[in-house]
Amino acid sequence: MTMMNSIVLQNGVLNVIQTPLPQPQAGQVLVRSLACGICGSDLHITRHSDDVLNLFRDLDLLPPGTDNHAQVMLGHEFCAEIISYGPNSQENLPIGSRVTSVPILLSQNNAGVGVTPGIGGAYSEYFILDEALLLPIPKHIPDEAAALTEPLAVGLHAVNRANIGSNDTALVVGCGPIGLAVISALHRKGVQQILAADLQQDKLMLARKFGATAHINPKEQDEVAVAASYTNSNRLVIFECVGIHRLIDSFVHRAPTNATVVVTGVHTTPSTINYAYATVKELDICFSYYYQPDEFKECLDAIADGEIPWPLLLTGKVGIDGVSDAFAQLMKPNKHIKVVVEPWRKGKLEAY
Amino acid sequence: MTMMNSIVLQNGVLNVIQTPLPQPQAGQVLVRSLACGICGSDLHITRHSDDVLNLFRDLDLLPPGTDNHAQVMLGHEFCAEIISYGPNSQENLPIGSRVTSVPILLSQNNAGVGVTPGIGGAYSEYFILDEALLLPIPKHIPDEAAALTEPLAVGLHAVNRANIGSNDTALVVGCGPIGLAVISALHRKGVQQILAADLQQDKLMLARKFGATAHINPKEQDEVAVAASYTNSNRLVIFECVGIHRLIDSFVHRAPTNATVVVTGVHTTPSTINYAYATVKELDICFSYYYQPDEFKECLDAIADGEIPWPLLLTGKVGIDGVSDAFAQLMKPNKHIKVVVEPWRKGKLEAY
Repeated sequence: MTMMNSIVLQNGVLNVIQTPLPQPQAGQVLVRSLACGICGSDLHITRHSDDVLNLFRDLDLLPPGTDNHAQVMLGHEFCAEIISYGPNSQENLPIGSRVTSVPILLSQNNAGVGVTPGIGGAYSEYFILDEALLLPIPKHIPDEAAALTEPLAVGLHAVNRANIGSNDTALVVGCGPIGLAVISALHRKGVQQILAADLQQDKLMLARKFGATAHINPKEQDEVAVAASYTNSNRLVIFECVGIHRLIDSFVHRAPTNATVVVTGVHTTPSTINYAYATVKELDICFSYYYQPDEFKECLDAIADGEIPWPLLLTGKVGIDGVSDAFAQLMKPNKHIKVVVEPWRKGKLEAY
Repeated sequence: MTMMNSIVLQNGVLNVIQTPLPQPQAGQVLVRSLACGICGSDLHITRHSDDVLNLFRDLDLLPPGTDNHAQVMLGHEFCAEIISYGPNSQENLPIGSRVTSVPILLSQNNAGVGVTPGIGGAYSEYFILDEALLLPIPKHIPDEAAALTEPLAVGLHAVNRANIGSNDTALVVGCGPIGLAVISALHRKGVQQILAADLQQDKLMLARKFGATAHINPKEQDEVAVAASYTNSNRLVIFECVGIHRLIDSFVHRAPTNATVVVTGVHTTPSTINYAYATVKELDICFSYYYQPDEFKECLDAIADGEIPWPLLLTGKVGIDGVSDAFAQLMKPNKHIKVVVEPWRKGKLEAY
């Protein structure tokens, strides 16, 4: 049996182990991972493994019988190359073509690539995709740029969920990868007032380069009050892109009348909220998680068309044996935006 | 100084006391209350007086300096007759005309009639309205029917907030006045599937008469699961019309993907919620509180046009000296839908 290097999360611990090379079934394709971004949700499931698995089990999203000691093969923000097709394939793309895809297997009960136990992930050397979902990557896009399609689609979807108009005011709180993806999508949609908020000055400067029209450091000013002063009685849409659940109640307290709060990121800890503030101000709280294939494609096209200053997102890269250490660093306060795993090589986390 | 009988809430206690007859200022009109519905929010502010006043103060909705011992004159669901106009009035409606109005005074910093301390309410014999907001009541509409305009507008606004399509499925949980108003609005909008849920069988039967197409008793079946089975992959919109805040988290846990939860009613107690369920299922939580003047007018027109079986809503009436006892009865489990105060007479709560 041919083996490969895989990164496996089990009981909250990441290890590089040897696993069997997966075999593509009908409609599937075996791909080799060229680059895969480390997502905040990868850090979250590593730190809160039990919470996330319990949640998924409760929502009937796990294969039957999966317990909390299950192995999870991470990696869902990827660029890969086609190695071989399974039986009964169309084979429209030549072997060796570079591809990306929404990280889901329609062919396996909508399992999530890089999250569902028993399914491969792009931190491993090889993994399985659905042929029907493959998107070929234009030649001029580097591997690591193509791997940014997924987080950019998360941001675009959050903006689409908010149904924001060009005269509404957007406040994006948290200028990590998702916050910057939201800002970029708002900018591409022509939203006139895009306010970025972050505690780190360098992330605020980055936000301006993605299209933010103003920036606020919440250490210095109440970012919601400042944003509310921009609205001219149009709607304020607040994007929660920090991943701290207490912020939601804080936004509900501080938001002006008729505001929308868009929550990105998964908060598995029970939170406290006083709904009365949301009621009297007639707020909407809109939860955004995934994206549609057309949003994914739109982001790949935006990268291809030079509409996104993607090189600014890439701050680190790491080989397969350095991922566990990289996670430890990323779980502490740090200056990184996106760190990319290159599973085909060894090496510690280094600047891009 | 001319005096009148008023019902005044202070420190959580309702009393009938003599207060000065109010004087209409420029743009205002003095009206005599003919009928005024008892609203769930009147019971709530009586029971949780401190919580509500603290909330309003925090949202800058109280006159400066108002403390929690302030007197509140309740009554915002009314039919009244014009007694006299203030200075500089248009006087388009003759003295004696019957009117209703959105319960707000644009002329006094948007104060709420029947809720803002220092402003009159329609449980009292006389109170003040804005001339510009008056709606004349067609002759064939009885006083007590006109007083139903306000709760019907609350229901219509909740439906409009949800932006529901005729092929979406509505689940209305709680078939009191607001639930029935929501059902009526859904029915008038042509929503095809309107599921009513209530623990009381007679309220479910009533819901059918307002347009519900199916009914569920949550003691017998999981109302959200039943509703989800009706959606045919269209959206489920759940209307929370019970006023129990724990239901919101319960709906978030049980709702299918892409559902909308519309919260009506004010929940001033902090609640616990696990946002992860909302995120993974991409729910919207939409908070509804008030209405626009056009929605208010639409409901008065619907009453006038015979589109609403309003007599079924009226279950009790009470004179001015019976209100405090009526509140005590309504705060316990009871079979009432809407009880109407008739401040111009004495008398205990009796069936309509």
